[in-house]
Amino acid sequence: MYAQGYFFYDSKKSGGITVSHLRFGKTPIKSPYLINKADFVACHNQSYVYKYNVLEGLKKGGKFLLNTIWTPEEVEEHLPASYKKFIAENNIEFYTLNAVKIAQEIGLGGRINMIMQSAFFKLSNVIPVDDAIKYLKDAVVTSYGKKGQKVVDMNNAAIDKGVESIVKIEVPASWASIVEEAAATTEIPEFIKKIVNPMNRQEGDKLPVSAFVGMEDGTFPQGTAAYEKRGVAINVPEWQMDKCIQCNQCAFVCPHAAIRPILANEAEVAAAPAGFEAKDASGAKGLKFHMAVSPLDCLGCGNCADICPAKEKALVMKPLDTQLEKSAAWDYALTVSHKENPAKKFSVKGSQFEKPLLEFSGSCAGCMETSYAKVVTQLFGDRMMIANATGCSSIWGASAPATPYTTNHRGHGPSWANSLFEDNAQFGLGMFLGVEQLRDKLAMTVKEVLGGNASANLKAALQDWLDNMNVGEGSRERADKVIAAIEAEKTDCGLVKEIYDNKDFLVKRSHWIFGGDGWSYDIGYGGLDHVLASGEDVNVFVFDTEVYSNTGGQSSKATPTAAIAKFAASGKKTKKKDLGMMAMSYGYVYVAQVSMGADKNQLVKALAEAEAYPGPSLVIGYSPCINHGLKASMGKSQLESKKAVDCGYWALYRYNPALKEEGKNPFVLDSKEPTGDFREFLMGEVRYASLSKQFPEAAEALFEKTERDAKERLAGYKELAAK
Amino acid sequence: MYAQGYFFYDSKKSGGITVSHLRFGKTPIKSPYLINKADFVACHNQSYVYKYNVLEGLKKGGKFLLNTIWTPEEVEEHLPASYKKFIAENNIEFYTLNAVKIAQEIGLGGRINMIMQSAFFKLSNVIPVDDAIKYLKDAVVTSYGKKGQKVVDMNNAAIDKGVESIVKIEVPASWASIVEEAAATTEIPEFIKKIVNPMNRQEGDKLPVSAFVGMEDGTFPQGTAAYEKRGVAINVPEWQMDKCIQCNQCAFVCPHAAIRPILANEAEVAAAPAGFEAKDASGAKGLKFHMAVSPLDCLGCGNCADICPAKEKALVMKPLDTQLEKSAAWDYALTVSHKENPAKKFSVKGSQFEKPLLEFSGSCAGCMETSYAKVVTQLFGDRMMIANATGCSSIWGASAPATPYTTNHRGHGPSWANSLFEDNAQFGLGMFLGVEQLRDKLAMTVKEVLGGNASANLKAALQDWLDNMNVGEGSRERADKVIAAIEAEKTDCGLVKEIYDNKDFLVKRSHWIFGGDGWSYDIGYGGLDHVLASGEDVNVFVFDTEVYSNTGGQSSKATPTAAIAKFAASGKKTKKKDLGMMAMSYGYVYVAQVSMGADKNQLVKALAEAEAYPGPSLVIGYSPCINHGLKASMGKSQLESKKAVDCGYWALYRYNPALKEEGKNPFVLDSKEPTGDFREFLMGEVRYASLSKQFPEAAEALFEKTERDAKERLAGYKELAAK
Ligand SMILES: Cc1ncc(C[n+]2csc(CCOP(=O)(O)OP(=O)(O)O)c2C)c(N)n1
Ligand SMILES: Cc1ncc(C[n+]2csc(CCOP(=O)(O)OP(=O)(O)O)c2C)c(N)n1
Ligand code: SF4
Ligand code: SF4
Ligand code: SF4
Ligand code: SF4
Repeated sequence: MYAQGYFFYDSKKSGGITVSHLRFGKTPIKSPYLINKADFVACHNQSYVYKYNVLEGLKKGGKFLLNTIWTPEEVEEHLPASYKKFIAENNIEFYTLNAVKIAQEIGLGGRINMIMQSAFFKLSNVIPVDDAIKYLKDAVVTSYGKKGQKVVDMNNAAIDKGVESIVKIEVPASWASIVEEAAATTEIPEFIKKIVNPMNRQEGDKLPVSAFVGMEDGTFPQGTAAYEKRGVAINVPEWQMDKCIQCNQCAFVCPHAAIRPILANEAEVAAAPAGFEAKDASGAKGLKFHMAVSPLDCLGCGNCADICPAKEKALVMKPLDTQLEKSAAWDYALTVSHKENPAKKFSVKGSQFEKPLLEFSGSCAGCMETSYAKVVTQLFGDRMMIANATGCSSIWGASAPATPYTTNHRGHGPSWANSLFEDNAQFGLGMFLGVEQLRDKLAMTVKEVLGGNASANLKAALQDWLDNMNVGEGSRERADKVIAAIEAEKTDCGLVKEIYDNKDFLVKRSHWIFGGDGWSYDIGYGGLDHVLASGEDVNVFVFDTEVYSNTGGQSSKATPTAAIAKFAASGKKTKKKDLGMMAMSYGYVYVAQVSMGADKNQLVKALAEAEAYPGPSLVIGYSPCINHGLKASMGKSQLESKKAVDCGYWALYRYNPALKEEGKNPFVLDSKEPTGDFREFLMGEVRYASLSKQFPEAAEALFEKTERDAKERLAGYKELAAK
Repeated sequence: MYAQGYFFYDSKKSGGITVSHLRFGKTPIKSPYLINKADFVACHNQSYVYKYNVLEGLKKGGKFLLNTIWTPEEVEEHLPASYKKFIAENNIEFYTLNAVKIAQEIGLGGRINMIMQSAFFKLSNVIPVDDAIKYLKDAVVTSYGKKGQKVVDMNNAAIDKGVESIVKIEVPASWASIVEEAAATTEIPEFIKKIVNPMNRQEGDKLPVSAFVGMEDGTFPQGTAAYEKRGVAINVPEWQMDKCIQCNQCAFVCPHAAIRPILANEAEVAAAPAGFEAKDASGAKGLKFHMAVSPLDCLGCGNCADICPAKEKALVMKPLDTQLEKSAAWDYALTVSHKENPAKKFSVKGSQFEKPLLEFSGSCAGCMETSYAKVVTQLFGDRMMIANATGCSSIWGASAPATPYTTNHRGHGPSWANSLFEDNAQFGLGMFLGVEQLRDKLAMTVKEVLGGNASANLKAALQDWLDNMNVGEGSRERADKVIAAIEAEKTDCGLVKEIYDNKDFLVKRSHWIFGGDGWSYDIGYGGLDHVLASGEDVNVFVFDTEVYSNTGGQSSKATPTAAIAKFAASGKKTKKKDLGMMAMSYGYVYVAQVSMGADKNQLVKALAEAEAYPGPSLVIGYSPCINHGLKASMGKSQLESKKAVDCGYWALYRYNPALKEEGKNPFVLDSKEPTGDFREFLMGEVRYASLSKQFPEAAEALFEKTERDAKERLAGYKELAAK
C-alpha cells in the first residue's frame, strides 16, 4: 500500500483553512497535482459549509463526512441548499459525526484529529478497518507513550468512538429538486463579489485573467478585510456599560480593531438597534459613549478584557454564539456620523476616537505587531505611505485577496506596498524621494503663483501652506484651505491648475517603513543603516518579536542570549544586538524603544515625536508573539510586554536629536528601575523555560548571561540619561 | 570626416599602459573591434620597446613614430633587433621625436601630449596638416584659455615643435637580416614565461586555453609581481649608510616593499656585489646591516626618505638611472640566508626583519592601503588566509597576471581570494568555518591518538598542540614538532597518518577580511555586521580612504562632512559614520582605529591584539589616497596621516574585550589631545580646499560642522576612556 499527501493552506496567521489531498494505491503514486475527483471528502469544521464548496470534485456515489453538532433534523434545517442538491443529484453517501462533543467528553478538549481519522478509515475502506484501528493505536503509543497512560487511553477511546459514532443521513428525494436561495442582497462591492469571495472560497485558481482588468499594476482596493467576517473566536468581549470608565485602553490594545469607542448624538442613539447601549460621554458634552464590539471580527484573544483597568472589569469574555446579536449594533456603530475628536489625538484615550485604518487583519490572536501598527494608523493613517518588509507584517498587512488597511470617512488611508525582504528600507526611501521631488516642484509653482496676481485669499492659503509644507500636523487642514481657495478663485491660470492637479501632494505625507527584527537587525540591516544615515525624513517601525516569526521562529540578531529558536536549538550564545544604540551613534536619527503593555503614553509620545522629527526616525517595539510560547497565553501578551519592562528585560527610552539642538540631553530613559523578577519572567515563556529542561547545565549559565546582558544594556542607557 | 576611438588599459593603479585605437574616414565608422591592421603606430614611451611589441599589426609600408631621447646613432645601438627586423622587412617609414626634451624646454614638464598630437597629424595626413594645426590651436584656447596666455603659448609652441622636430630614420638594409638575440637565460618560472609575460605584453588574448591546464580553478601562483620590474619611478631612494640609525621605519612604511633591511654574515658580505654596503647590525651580534633598495620595484613616492628620522636623512631621492646599478645588490640581498629575527617581531623595527609577503603591487605611489597590508603580512603572513572585498585592494592585491602576495623562505604565504563586493565578510567567515571544521576533526583524531599507545615523544608534541591549538603565536613551531615526531614514529597507525595527511591544518590560521570603506561602511556593511556579531575568530582590516577609491572617489558613509566626492559634489552634508563605535556596541568585538604615520607602535600593538583576540576583530586604518588631493603630494602620505591625528581629525584607540574580562576598562584612547590646526589640515587637501573655491558660502558652515563632528566624536571616545 502506498500513500501520497499534498497539503494546501491559505496564508492567514490564525483560523485559516488547510485542505489535505490524500491518495492511496497499491503502486507508487507520483501525481504532481491536486485531487479533482475524490472518492471521499471530510469536512472537519462545520462552519466551512457556509464558506467553501467542500464537495467540489466529489465523485458520483462518493462519500461525504461532516463533523457537526447538528442532529439529522438540524442538518435538514441548516445545511445549505447547494449542498443538499449536490448530494442528492450525485448520489452521495452522507455521514455526520459530532467529533467536538466526543472530544470534550473524553477529555481531549478541542483535539478532534484521532476521532476524524478513525472515522475516515471506517468509511473509506482504504485498508480493513480492524487493521487501521490497530495501526492507529500502535501509533498512539509511539506518539504519546511518554506522556503517560492517561493520554494513551484518551486517544484510544477517541479511535473507538470515531468508528462507533458515525451517523448515516438518509437523503430525501426532495433534495434533488431544491431551489438554491438567492444570495443576500446586502450591498457588497463588485471587487468583493468577483474576486475576494471566490479567492476566499479557495477558488481563486478559477478566476479568469479578465477578472483583473483595471488592476494590471497589482493594486488591490483597501478595506476589504471588513467583508471577511471570519467569526473564528471562541469567546468575545461583552461590554458592561455601567462599569466602564471610558479610558479606551481596550480599543488601544486590540490587534484587530474589533472593539471601538463610538460617540453618538441623541438622535443616533435613539435610532440604534438593540444592543447599542450608550451612556454620557465623559469630556464630550452632548454626546453618548458606546463601546462597540464586532463578534465576527474579534479573534477572541482576551487582551482587551485582561487590561481593562475598571475597578470591576467592564469587559467580560463570553462565548461567541451569545454575542452574535451584537453584530447589528456594530454595523450600526460604523455608520454613525463622524465627530470631531473631543480628546487630544496624541493621547491614549484620544487616539481611539480616530478611526483605525488597519482592521480585522489575519494576524494571530493577541499579536502585538498589529496592535502597534493599528495605533500608528490612528495617528497618521490618513496621510501615510507604508513600505513593508516581508514578514508577518506583510502577511497580516495584505494576504490576498483581503486588505486590512482601510480609509477614513473622507476616503483617506495609508498606501501600502511590500518590497523584497532585504530592500525594504531603500524601497521606503524611494517612496519618500519620489514624493519629495513632486512636492518640491509644487513648492516652486506655489512660489510663482505667490509672485503673481492671485487673490489675497488664495495667496494667504498658499503662503500658509508654503511656510509649513513639511509640518505634518495641520497639513490636511492647510491643504483643504488651498483647495477651497483655488475652487473659489475660478481662474484659468495654468500654474494654479497645476497646483490643483497635484492637490494630493499638498498634504505632507507620513512615510513609514515597517518590518520585523529579521529584516531590521539582519537581512535588511545594511539598507536600513544606509537609509537612517541618509538623514531623510522617513519613519521606521520595527516589530521586534526577537525571532523571524513568519517563517516559524528562526534566531535573529535580536534574539537574546539563552532563548531557544531555530538555528539556536540549544539557546542563543551571543547577546541581543543593540540596534537602537547603533542608530543613535549617528546623532541625527530619532530613536525610541517602546513596549505597548508597559507604557501606552510613552508609545504615543514616541510615535508623535518620531513622526514630527524632520529627519530619520527609528521606533523599536517589543512584540510578544506566538513563537515565544507565553505560558499565560497570547491573551496576556499586553501583560507580558509590561512584565518585560518591569523586570529590566526591555528598556523604554527616547533619543530625540531635536533636544540636542536645544542644548538638552537628547536621551530620556522612560522605564523605571526594574522591580520585577527577571528569572520569573524568563520562566513564563517556553522559549526560555524549555532550555532548563533540555540543557539543564548550560541553561543556568546562559540565563545568568542574558540577565547580565540586560543589566549592562540598561546601565549603558542610564549613563546616557545622566549626561 | 568621421573618427572612432577605443581605449585599452591594463589595471595597474599607476604606471600602466593605455593603447588608443583610432580610425578616421569619410563615412560613419561602426567597427566594434580593435584595430589589427594599422597605417600608423606611435609609441609615446621609449621603455615600451623593451616590454611590448608595439609594431604588431602595422601594415607593410606603414609609419612608426617613436618618442625617444635617442639620437639616430643611439637608435641603431639600442633598438631591439625584433623591431629593426620588422621595420626593414615591412618597409616601415620610421620616425623619432624627442618629445620629453621639447616639453621640458618649453616649460610643459612631463606633458608631451600636444607635441605627439601635432606630430601625428603631420605624419598621418588624416587631414591637411595646416588645418590640423589650426584646429589644435583653437582647441588650446578653448581648453586652456582660462589658465592664461602663458599656458596657451606653451601649448601652441608644443604644436609647432611637434611638427618641426620629427627625425626620419634611414633604415639600413642590414636590419632585414639581423638575428634576434636569444632571450636572457636567467631562471624564470614557466608561469612567468608562458602566462605573465605575454599578458603583461598585452598579448593575453592570444594565449590558448591549454596554457591554463592545471589551473582550471583559477588559482594563480604567488610572488609573480617580483618578475615585473616595472622601473616606473622618476627618483628612487639612495641609502646613506653612515647616517642610518637602523630604525627600519623606511621599510615599515614603504607601500611597495621596495626597501628592506638585510642581515648578512661576514661571508655573505664578502661575497656580495658592488653596492651592497653593510655596517655592524645594532642588536644583532656578528651580523651586518644593509638597507636594500630595488630601483626597478620602487614607485618613487619618497615616503621612506620623508619619514627617515635620522639627524641627517639617511635616504636621499636620486634619479632612477643613477640607481639602476643597485639592482644587483638587491637581487643578491634577496638570496642571503634566513636569519632569526634579532628584535621583537611585534615592534616597528623587528617587524621589518620579517619578509614582507606583499611586494611590488600595482598600487599608487604613496598609497597607504598597501603599507598597512604589507605590515600585516609581515606579522602573520605565513599562516594568513585573506578574503578580499572588491576595491583598490582587490586590484593591487591581484591584478592579473601578476600576484604581489608571496611566500617566505619556507614557502608559506597568505592565501588570497576576492569575492563579490557585497559579500566579502561572509566569504571570509566561510573560510574560517571551513577551516574550523577540519581542525575540529583533527583535534578529535589527536585526542584518539593521545588515548592510544603512541610514543611519549609524539604524545608530548600532540598534547602541546592540543592545549594551544587556537593560539596563533608559536603555532608553526608546535606544528613542526608534531610533524617531526610523526616522521620519527615510523608507525602505520591510520589515525597518525590522518593527522599527517592534514598537517597543513595543524598551524592555527590567521583569518583576515580586507576591504575599503565603500565595502565596510556601505555596500558590505550588513554582512560585516553579521560576521562581527557571530563572535567568530576573524580579523577585519578596513582601508579607510573615506571614498570609493577604486572607482574614482564616490562618497561613502565614511566620507566626512564637507569633503567633496562624487555624489557629494557640493561637499558631503552628513557626518562620517562611526563604524568602530557601532561594532563596539556588541561588547565582544575587538575594535581599533589606527593611522600608520601617526603612531607605528600603536598600529603594531593593535594588529597583535586583534589577531590574538579569540573573537572577531575590526581594525580601521586611516589611508591617505590619491583621491584626497594631498597638496604636499602622495610622497607625504605618511606625514598627512600623522597630521590627521595631530589635529583631531582622526582618533587612535583600541577597544579590547579581553580587558573587560579582567575587570579593566576595555577602551584605551591612544591619541593625545589635538595640537595641530584642524582647518590647516583640511586646506592641505583638495577635497576640502576646493569647496571654499566652488561654494565659498556653504563651505564655511560645512567646515565648522566637520570640525564639530570630529570634536564630538573625540569627546565620546574620551568619555569611554575615562570609565
Ligand atoms: C532574502 C529573503 N530571505 C528569506 C525570506 C523568507 N522570509 C520571508 S518572511 C521571513 C521572516 C521575517 O522575519 P522578521 O523580519 O523578524 O519579521 P516577523 O515575521 O517576525 O514579523 C523570511 C525569512 C525572504 N522573503 N527573503
Ligand atoms: C555591488 C557592487 N557595486 C559596485 C561595484 C563596483 N565597484 C568596484 S570597486 C568599488 C569601490 C570600492 O571602494 P572601497 O570599498 O572604498 O575600496 P577602495 O577602492 O577605496 O579601496 C566599486 C563601487 C561592485 N564591484 N559591486
Ligand atoms: S478579545 Fe482580542 S481581538 Fe477581540 S476585541 Fe478584545 S483585544 Fe480585540
Ligand atoms: S508576529 Fe507572531 S503573533 Fe504576530 S502574526 Fe506573526 S507569528 Fe503571529
Ligand atoms: S620611494 Fe616609496 S616606493 Fe620607493 S622605496 Fe621609498 S617608500 Fe618605497
Ligand atoms: S587607495 Fe588610493 S592611493 Fe591606494 S591604490 Fe587606491 S586610488 Fe591609489
